Amino acid sequence: MPGDDAYQAFSDYTERLLNLSHASRILDWDQQVMMPTGGTPARSRQLAALSRAEHDRLRDEAFGEILEAVADADLTPVQAANVREMRRRHERAVRVPSTLVEETRQARSDAFDSWRAAKEADDFQTFAPVLEDLVALRREYAAAIDPGRDPYAVLYEEFEPYIPFESAVDILETLGEELPRLIAAIQRWDTGPSRRSLHGSFDSADQAAFVREVLTELGFDWDRGRLDTSEHPFQRGSPFDARLTTRFDETNLLDGLTSAVHEFGHALYVQQLPDAQYGLPVGEARDMIIHESQSRFWENHVGRSRAFWERILPIARRYFPTLEGVSVADAYRSANAVAPETPIRTEADEVSYHLHIVVRFEIERALVRGDLDVAEVPAVWADKMDGYLGVTPDTHAEGVLQDVHWSNATFGYFPTYSLGSVAAAQFRAAFEEAVGPLEAVIAEEGFEPVADWLGETVHQHGKQLRTDDLVREATGRPLSAAPLLGYFHRKYGELYDRQP
Amino acid sequence: MPGDDAYQAFSDYTERLLNLSHASRILDWDQQVMMPTGGTPARSRQLAALSRAEHDRLRDEAFGEILEAVADADLTPVQAANVREMRRRHERAVRVPSTLVEETRQARSDAFDSWRAAKEADDFQTFAPVLEDLVALRREYAAAIDPGRDPYAVLYEEFEPYIPFESAVDILETLGEELPRLIAAIQRWDTGPSRRSLHGSFDSADQAAFVREVLTELGFDWDRGRLDTSEHPFQRGSPFDARLTTRFDETNLLDGLTSAVHEFGHALYVQQLPDAQYGLPVGEARDMIIHESQSRFWENHVGRSRAFWERILPIARRYFPTLEGVSVADAYRSANAVAPETPIRTEADEVSYHLHIVVRFEIERALVRGDLDVAEVPAVWADKMDGYLGVTPDTHAEGVLQDVHWSNATFGYFPTYSLGSVAAAQFRAAFEEAVGPLEAVIAEEGFEPVADWLGETVHQHGKQLRTDDLVREATGRPLSAAPLLGYFHRKYGELYDRQP
Repeated sequence: MPGDDAYQAFSDYTERLLNLSHASRILDWDQQVMMPTGGTPARSRQLAALSRAEHDRLRDEAFGEILEAVADADLTPVQAANVREMRRRHERAVRVPSTLVEETRQARSDAFDSWRAAKEADDFQTFAPVLEDLVALRREYAAAIDPGRDPYAVLYEEFEPYIPFESAVDILETLGEELPRLIAAIQRWDTGPSRRSLHGSFDSADQAAFVREVLTELGFDWDRGRLDTSEHPFQRGSPFDARLTTRFDETNLLDGLTSAVHEFGHALYVQQLPDAQYGLPVGEARDMIIHESQSRFWENHVGRSRAFWERILPIARRYFPTLEGVSVADAYRSANAVAPETPIRTEADEVSYHLHIVVRFEIERALVRGDLDVAEVPAVWADKMDGYLGVTPDTHAEGVLQDVHWSNATFGYFPTYSLGSVAAAQFRAAFEEAVGPLEAVIAEEGFEPVADWLGETVHQHGKQLRTDDLVREATGRPLSAAPLLGYFHRKYGELYDRQP
Repeated sequence: MPGDDAYQAFSDYTERLLNLSHASRILDWDQQVMMPTGGTPARSRQLAALSRAEHDRLRDEAFGEILEAVADADLTPVQAANVREMRRRHERAVRVPSTLVEETRQARSDAFDSWRAAKEADDFQTFAPVLEDLVALRREYAAAIDPGRDPYAVLYEEFEPYIPFESAVDILETLGEELPRLIAAIQRWDTGPSRRSLHGSFDSADQAAFVREVLTELGFDWDRGRLDTSEHPFQRGSPFDARLTTRFDETNLLDGLTSAVHEFGHALYVQQLPDAQYGLPVGEARDMIIHESQSRFWENHVGRSRAFWERILPIARRYFPTLEGVSVADAYRSANAVAPETPIRTEADEVSYHLHIVVRFEIERALVRGDLDVAEVPAVWADKMDGYLGVTPDTHAEGVLQDVHWSNATFGYFPTYSLGSVAAAQFRAAFEEAVGPLEAVIAEEGFEPVADWLGETVHQHGKQLRTDDLVREATGRPLSAAPLLGYFHRKYGELYDRQP
């Protein structure tokens, strides 16, 4: 087969396959945002059928032959990247029986409901057997992929294939060691008068209108996206249709806004992917570390900057006249309050946040390795939270049941949150070298130069570059915890006028 | 293979297949209700990939072998019905190349957008080539199924396999002959003082709340369904998740309510299907004639009854205090105003409605048979509207572009609307023989006995009975226009106190 024909056969096959997974993501969005509560039995089976169809096509011998035929073809870098990515997926998929994939998909969909009910009832006991089954299914999966390796490392690679697990562990251990000291220092300095200036009474509908205006200001394309609310904020979609959700707390303005700005970072990445490559790997976002670096960039480096509040506070005051008495300095201080006393990960400040991740990482690694029983998880959770953050949850809903992730069987995913923040700080350093100080750029030119630089440096590449190559090309160095720690020390040192 | 194993293999395979089509329906709902305008390129490809996967599985030789293995098994009536229905689909599917299915699905999805833009711009020219392509694709499909037969009859059988096309033609011709006379008589009698008592000013959000309350009263299960708005009202879903849409006109209360009650009839059918058979044909609604009989039953026999307005008007007055001056008699008269002067099908009264269908039926039959060019359609449309209804549209948007159906390539579908009304009148006659006069039952006991009787007589059977058998078992006779004509004569004779 001539090279062009071989590539055409490859791309036709791949597009059909990846469009099935795009369809699944819309059904998943619908389940979390729109579906009535009684819809689960049908939705679980729809998602299982889709996963099965997708997995069957991915592992099909016919696809193996297509990949072989295209192996020797003369390909452009974009084409070669598409083939590289699909070959990796095919090779993993042939090791996993279709029945396991289907069973896992159905179990995940059912578990979402069990988790939601258990959280509402603050009842870990009803969720425990569900969690046990999910752990068992994922161990089975990891053993099928590579029976000789640490099953947790294998699962981590589902979310990040190109940053070695050992580097991830190193970085997480560094954060676990360094951050408690920094947090203790900040707590000594912080006398806290303006920490709660963005608390008060904020109507949800008004917050939704306010957040829409902020997203417009940041550059969200409403013709190619939506904003909704859901229990757990998330983002799904394609360059043509990028959807984000948030949730509102009527007692404070920060939660809903911060979540929305975070998910906006994901959505902007997706909206700026090369849409001509839709349905192929290069038309997709790089894996979770890079995805999360984009959301953290917007949430923390932009959304918690002084320049952001200079621009956003006047908009907020139009919706909430009680904010007339709040200054930019108050809002900035409030958005950057370090409050390790909350047991809730999504309410944590940007520093303490990583200790929440370290707790989850240590627990899920032990679960997946078989070193910890599900029944022991609440006690271990309380212990580790106390050790790292000095806080223990009063309820399961504020403890082990707070996150959706385990109900979705995404063990190995939590580390990418912290690694994403690490990458974000590294991207910020590179932005400042290339364009100028972030605060000054936003103050003088608004958000467009930021969106443009991220578009050129990260988004437009999709999956063309491997994660490690993308980080090195964009920032000149491999992924490391140093830029994040440096950013924390500079920012909080300046905020409290101290040398940490 | 023993019979039980053969049936298990059949049902596993079928469930996986039908769940892909359930997934498509959710994506279709999302496209019409939630998707941002820019989402079409991706959605079209997702739907095409799903159709392709579904069609591949349906026509797969492996499925042929499964069907052969189950042919001699000892089956229950429900199992035998599931096999009968899937065998018919498999036999049709093997005749149609997968590429044609995929191409058609993508063309339909793209055409939806073209149609919406053309309608908004009142521009038939831009839609004409799209329509030509869709006609050509459907002719190709019909020729693949059965090259020797009238292609339009083949397409009609996509929507109704078990009521012969010749009976359908007979019934439509009878309506085309009889109804103009009846409409002319009603127009002479009607001096029209209270025809517009439900016109005025009605806020959309208030209408939505009012309609929700009406649906609750009718028996809608909100844990297993949703109500939204869309350009063209429709219903999609499963017993676990039945979704309906309507649209509101702020100048009158009837449009949004009538559409919602119509779609409720579809949704109740779906909610009362046997959910243990979900994913198999017996868990699905019978085809379009029976589906439409349920929506017409609720829209016309219930929603335009005096007893309905006795119950609903007090609710309406709570939302719209200006209705204090409107009596039940006024509302009843208004809901039953015969107004052949509207060029819009969905705004037509229940009598004139069928002449709108006859116009579409005659045009689409000629198009599909190759007896009419797309370019001539607007002129022929005007001619026929004038001949049957004495009205010609001022714009394409109020003429040939008013309906979504042709953009969806569903030629052969329109007749099922009128045949559904015919079936509804026949079900009403059977209800009255079995339970009592509909008006009296609603007045005395509310809507539950109606929902229950339809559930037992129609809904719970799903596709277990063929359409012709279902009609005969439920009503004691084959489908005929007589009960509908009898109902019209009785109702309007009584309304105007005349003998037509």
